[in-house]
Amino acid sequence: MSSAEEEKPFFFFSTDETSAAGRKLNLAVRRIYLPISVLLESLCLPFVCWFFFCSVFMKMDPSDEQRSASSSSHVFVHNPHLDTMKDDILYHFSLGTKTHDLPAMFGDVKFVCVGGSPWRMKSFIEYIAAELAMEDPKSDYPNICAGTDRYAMYKVGPVLSVSHGMGIPSIAIMLHELIKLLHHARCTDVTIIRIGTSGGIGLEPGTVVVTKQSVDATFLPKFEQVILGKTVVRNTDLDRSLAEELLQCSKELNQFETVIGNTMCTLDFYEGQARLDGAFCAYTEKDKQDYLNRAREAGVCNIEMESSVFAAMCKLSGLRAAVVCVTLLDRLKGDQLSSSHDVLHNYQQRPQILVGSYIKKQLKAKLQRS
Amino acid sequence: MSSAEEEKPFFFFSTDETSAAGRKLNLAVRRIYLPISVLLESLCLPFVCWFFFCSVFMKMDPSDEQRSASSSSHVFVHNPHLDTMKDDILYHFSLGTKTHDLPAMFGDVKFVCVGGSPWRMKSFIEYIAAELAMEDPKSDYPNICAGTDRYAMYKVGPVLSVSHGMGIPSIAIMLHELIKLLHHARCTDVTIIRIGTSGGIGLEPGTVVVTKQSVDATFLPKFEQVILGKTVVRNTDLDRSLAEELLQCSKELNQFETVIGNTMCTLDFYEGQARLDGAFCAYTEKDKQDYLNRAREAGVCNIEMESSVFAAMCKLSGLRAAVVCVTLLDRLKGDQLSSSHDVLHNYQQRPQILVGSYIKKQLKAKLQRS
Repeated sequence: MSSAEEEKPFFFFSTDETSAAGRKLNLAVRRIYLPISVLLESLCLPFVCWFFFCSVFMKMDPSDEQRSASSSSHVFVHNPHLDTMKDDILYHFSLGTKTHDLPAMFGDVKFVCVGGSPWRMKSFIEYIAAELAMEDPKSDYPNICAGTDRYAMYKVGPVLSVSHGMGIPSIAIMLHELIKLLHHARCTDVTIIRIGTSGGIGLEPGTVVVTKQSVDATFLPKFEQVILGKTVVRNTDLDRSLAEELLQCSKELNQFETVIGNTMCTLDFYEGQARLDGAFCAYTEKDKQDYLNRAREAGVCNIEMESSVFAAMCKLSGLRAAVVCVTLLDRLKGDQLSSSHDVLHNYQQRPQILVGSYIKKQLKAKLQRS
Repeated sequence: MSSAEEEKPFFFFSTDETSAAGRKLNLAVRRIYLPISVLLESLCLPFVCWFFFCSVFMKMDPSDEQRSASSSSHVFVHNPHLDTMKDDILYHFSLGTKTHDLPAMFGDVKFVCVGGSPWRMKSFIEYIAAELAMEDPKSDYPNICAGTDRYAMYKVGPVLSVSHGMGIPSIAIMLHELIKLLHHARCTDVTIIRIGTSGGIGLEPGTVVVTKQSVDATFLPKFEQVILGKTVVRNTDLDRSLAEELLQCSKELNQFETVIGNTMCTLDFYEGQARLDGAFCAYTEKDKQDYLNRAREAGVCNIEMESSVFAAMCKLSGLRAAVVCVTLLDRLKGDQLSSSHDVLHNYQQRPQILVGSYIKKQLKAKLQRS
């Protein structure tokens, strides 16, 4: 084997070397391609090593790679099996690709707002319809998922409002099916915002928190997803520019205090959030205060139960995402909601007022550009 | 120091040794008490060591100790802070000790049935009312928690039916408030049964599984509860005799297949249960089959999303508990529900038929005893 053959890269140009012209052409091609191929291999090597390190040692999702290499305007599923399915039943929505024309029903969606309570998500669609002057006096905004009681879904123009129940597993099921729905409907440039309630730490009740990062019960910004019995760690960053735009919107509204900060996401409302009023509690008031103060020192402004998986799944699917939660009480001062019904109702409306104002502003700006 | 003093145990009888009678009495007492005290200490030592090991190294709940030392007929809360509260607001039920007469409303409850869907829990109360011949033609069984849309609750005679949403966090919130409700209502001898749906492994669809142990995604019988940022491991055993009684009931009914087996409880419906039809899937059909086959070899009969925390919390609170779930499909053969609506509806009624029959039998036996 000659040294030229040993060095030959896999895409090397090959011709007849028995003629003088052929040898000359081959030599010229070698002089051009060889340095380029060596340069390319040198540049690629660190990326290959990094990918190997992330996949094997850090157990990061390879789909992160896929996403960042694609356009940001689409809603991405990362599942090659979906292409082989003749019908995709979105079971918990009581919808499906065979039974419903998803592009016709949802193709124009640009904003998705999600929240725990079905009542609140119906109230939100009524509010947004009035804000966008799109209300239909004859319509009572039918629940699109009327065939099931798992989730409720409402739509007005480009705005979709979906309930997700309480806790990470409940919102995760909804998000899997919502992401597939937006994908099947071929939606583009979708912004998704979770509007909800939370317990504040050291904030005046009624303050609205726009989440910077969602952190776990040890104050780390990560979400652990168990797949085939093994733990995969996912990133919980939310869209910084969207958070800033929402903060700016709140300043313009000037109706209530809004801050950007970290949100702690727990798997439990009582022991998991250091409450003293659950059925079980083996710690003291001092233990509780110490824990919540450590959370505050770690930048935690509020506590809820869905933001981590919401942030992780939206990031994986290329959805521009934000979490906007009002604090119903200051957890450093108590555990139970002692404010009056009217006061609590007023607090609960704040995230929808802020997000409604943001959507209106965005649609107005789009109209002016077109 | 004399050798007698050295051996003297801490509870040793003491009297005046200056008189002959005193010395004689003390000697007699020493001869009787010393061997007894040594024997007692020898017997106690392993228990003390076990308790220390469990509390410090295995981080088990000390409340386990408390419970086993108490009577089994009451519903236990393990929270000293509750005694200091003037009012206990069960926020997610929209009930409270100040606003509602809980003993009058719930004091007679002997059976609690819980399930994910509010519709199914309303259907269950209608079914049980007819079974027990307690139906009121004028009543449409009002939702006791009508002030909130988080959970739905219905009652007929000694039977309470409560929805819990989907996933561990959602059922955990409900159980904290339910256990406090039963405690405030001074209920005794309560049996609680979760009726639900699940994915089967290697079973004919429609088979009913009564859970022996709830296992996690690595097939271990434990539930990890995070408290103040630290993980506490809780036991997930369910009541063996109740499971056997339910199996016997199914044999007498002779309407469908029922088995006793382990149930895997996951935090996610798609990636967490090795489904190939979620928005994200980075594994192959073979990876899925390998994982589910390993689960089957570990004794797992079915997969759902609430049993582990249900078992753990019921055990801590002294509630006699069972999980009865029907399998809607065989996960070794597919992921989506392709059976007709009527077939699925028939399957979903099986847990309620079995539990209805069990309750009827128990109440009949009680009536015959009285």
